[in-house]
Amino acid sequence: MALIERDDIISRLEGMEGWELRDESLEKTFTFDGYLAGIEFVNRLAAAAEEQAHHPDLEVGYGRVVVRVSTHSEGGITERDFRLAAAADAV
Amino acid sequence: MALIERDDIISRLEGMEGWELRDESLEKTFTFDGYLAGIEFVNRLAAAAEEQAHHPDLEVGYGRVVVRVSTHSEGGITERDFRLAAAADAV
Repeated sequence: MALIERDDIISRLEGMEGWELRDESLEKTFTFDGYLAGIEFVNRLAAAAEEQAHHPDLEVGYGRVVVRVSTHSEGGITERDFRLAAAADAV
Repeated sequence: MALIERDDIISRLEGMEGWELRDESLEKTFTFDGYLAGIEFVNRLAAAAEEQAHHPDLEVGYGRVVVRVSTHSEGGITERDFRLAAAADAV
């Protein structure tokens, strides 16, 4: 799948609240009330990721989950990443 | 709860396979066959953590979960961290 150009990524992120481009990944921090609420989010996101056969890197803390999506095999951001980011917002 | 001295931490970690002291946390990387197996581990660990009212920071990737335990409120490692580390090995 084709890499998306940096300018296009930046432009598309303007319409996606909380997402930013960092270290060649789309990144967003989700906050929750307590640890288990974050884990619940992780489960729903993992199910969506499995359906898409595309998986985010996660950083889980107390009441906080950082989601990072990137297409490692292509070395950058592709449509698959924007699709997974949208799924994270939806769960 | 009292902080454990660095020398004591290092000495106790010798008996705990895969754990090391890094950035004031006890850290271990667990590997799995696939993304969902890692998520399954996260769920069991989260349940154990909730029981202990002490929660690890996690870094979740494909087939890999890095577990970091530390007593933030004390600024170092306490018995609670060793107990949580043991729980992570047990799940």
